[in-house]
Amino acid sequence: MTTINPLEDRVVIEVLDAEEITAGGIVLPNSAQEKPQRGKVKAIGPGRLLKNGKRADLSVKKGDEVFFGRYAGTEVSVDDVEYKILRENEILARRS
Amino acid sequence: MTTINPLEDRVVIEVLDAEEITAGGIVLPNSAQEKPQRGKVKAIGPGRLLKNGKRADLSVKKGDEVFFGRYAGTEVSVDDVEYKILRENEILARRS
Amino acid sequence: MTTINPLEDRVVIEVLDAEEITAGGIVLPNSAQEKPQRGKVKAIGPGRLLKNGKRADLSVKKGDEVFFGRYAGTEVSVDDVEYKILRENEILARRS
Amino acid sequence: MTTINPLEDRVVIEVLDAEEITAGGIVLPNSAQEKPQRGKVKAIGPGRLLKNGKRADLSVKKGDEVFFGRYAGTEVSVDDVEYKILRENEILARRS
Amino acid sequence: MTTINPLEDRVVIEVLDAEEITAGGIVLPNSAQEKPQRGKVKAIGPGRLLKNGKRADLSVKKGDEVFFGRYAGTEVSVDDVEYKILRENEILARRS
Amino acid sequence: MTTINPLEDRVVIEVLDAEEITAGGIVLPNSAQEKPQRGKVKAIGPGRLLKNGKRADLSVKKGDEVFFGRYAGTEVSVDDVEYKILRENEILARRS
Amino acid sequence: MTTINPLEDRVVIEVLDAEEITAGGIVLPNSAQEKPQRGKVKAIGPGRLLKNGKRADLSVKKGDEVFFGRYAGTEVSVDDVEYKILRENEILARRS
Repeated sequence: MTTINPLEDRVVIEVLDAEEITAGGIVLPNSAQEKPQRGKVKAIGPGRLLKNGKRADLSVKKGDEVFFGRYAGTEVSVDDVEYKILRENEILARRS
Repeated sequence: MTTINPLEDRVVIEVLDAEEITAGGIVLPNSAQEKPQRGKVKAIGPGRLLKNGKRADLSVKKGDEVFFGRYAGTEVSVDDVEYKILRENEILARRS
Repeated sequence: MTTINPLEDRVVIEVLDAEEITAGGIVLPNSAQEKPQRGKVKAIGPGRLLKNGKRADLSVKKGDEVFFGRYAGTEVSVDDVEYKILRENEILARRS
Repeated sequence: MTTINPLEDRVVIEVLDAEEITAGGIVLPNSAQEKPQRGKVKAIGPGRLLKNGKRADLSVKKGDEVFFGRYAGTEVSVDDVEYKILRENEILARRS
Repeated sequence: MTTINPLEDRVVIEVLDAEEITAGGIVLPNSAQEKPQRGKVKAIGPGRLLKNGKRADLSVKKGDEVFFGRYAGTEVSVDDVEYKILRENEILARRS
Repeated sequence: MTTINPLEDRVVIEVLDAEEITAGGIVLPNSAQEKPQRGKVKAIGPGRLLKNGKRADLSVKKGDEVFFGRYAGTEVSVDDVEYKILRENEILARRS
Repeated sequence: MTTINPLEDRVVIEVLDAEEITAGGIVLPNSAQEKPQRGKVKAIGPGRLLKNGKRADLSVKKGDEVFFGRYAGTEVSVDDVEYKILRENEILARRS
């Protein structure tokens, strides 16, 4: 199986479907233009290199569900699964 | 229920309706192109990381009603409610 | 009544009408494309945060009449009055 | 009479007519697209604030005739006179 | 034979074909617009020059298979082989 | 006679004709889009102000013939002569 | 004969023809849009001025054959020869 090892402060995200279910259970697909996307963190890089030679801890970890802008990052397709590679500062929030 | 935990100096805003009521009580919808928007702060991030390892306090808090540019930030729809995730410096003013 | 409290080095301006009266008293409306605007300062923020933890004084104060570029800042309409929220460095000059 | 007090390192310029007179005395209007403009300095700001808390001296003074790019700065019309408000680094040269 | 010696923190990549094989063995060419590319590192530069006069180690080495954005870097064709010359920070991840 | 005194690290250039003469003596006008221009340095500014309060020496002097990009700088027409005012870093090379 | 003396960290390159010869000897002109160019270094500048008053050594020398992006730098035609003037960081690699 293929593993993607992101460099620096990058994060590999498995993209989650953007559908929304209303209170009444009706599926409302988001309009592609204005909505962000959600995904699950699959792998994180070693962190950005600091001037003192250490690396900064990332603020997300493997398994976190996160929000990001729909056009953020770069899409990568590996073994039929769609991933995004984002820099840490393209991640807007964690969902809990 | 879903909680959105913004990273860094980001803030989650519940968007308020942009309608204006004139002195005579007539509703004047703002033209979408030139007006900012208002919203209520629902969650704030831990603050921007400073060089000394601490985090900067945010200048808004949960519950504040704030002004921001209509095109600022990223829209997120969670459980049928429309939110915006903004960076602190995209918030123009607090209303009181 | 609503109060707008600008953050950081922002300033709330009540926009003044752009008409010009010639020596002969004829009103010459400015062409919208090339003229700046004038306004009266209604509120000022606490100032930009400096590295030493203090805030920089603003160089304008409440009541000043100021010049700014027509496209500077963000328009806000509150209680039927049109305001602009500007950053301090978008203010070009004070009129006296 | 109105006075314009520029902020920071800004300068107020009274714009001079762009006409050129050839050796033979024929007036050659500059093509609007490629020529800069000249003007006379009417007021100067206090100078840019330095890190040590002092302000940098401006390299032009009231009365100087200066060159600047045609699209530099912001036009302001006060009491029927056309001015430009420029930052110091938009001034290309002094004429003598 | 020709050797390409990249300068600074640049890396020479031999581009790998972007085809994907599904579980059922059907070849799905990536759409050119949204997919990144993969390649094999053929040569690395000496690293970016640091202020202390040393050079920063690169985080990839010859032989690594890497991901990069489709529009990153510059294409070079040498002896009929297609290469890309990328800066280190245009490399998104290593594959393993 | 008019003198142009450039500010900071700016340089006044008298533009030289862009024609090229081939070995056979045929004049080949440069295509306007891709060729730089040459000129003769007529005046130099005092140099860019350094943090220590001194000014950096310019690397060209009056009389030098220099190369620059065709779209660099700002054209100024004084007493029927066409000049360009360039910043020092817009000068590509000296001819000798 | 004319000599071009590049300033700072600039380099003068004599552009080499972009044709490629395949294994079978067929000439394949590069498509103009996506391919870089090669050239031979004819002259180098004194190097970028460092804060300590010294100049940084260039990483290429006269005679080197180098790769650069097709749209990098500025074309100069002198004595019927086509040159490019590039900054050092526009040079991607040396060929050997």
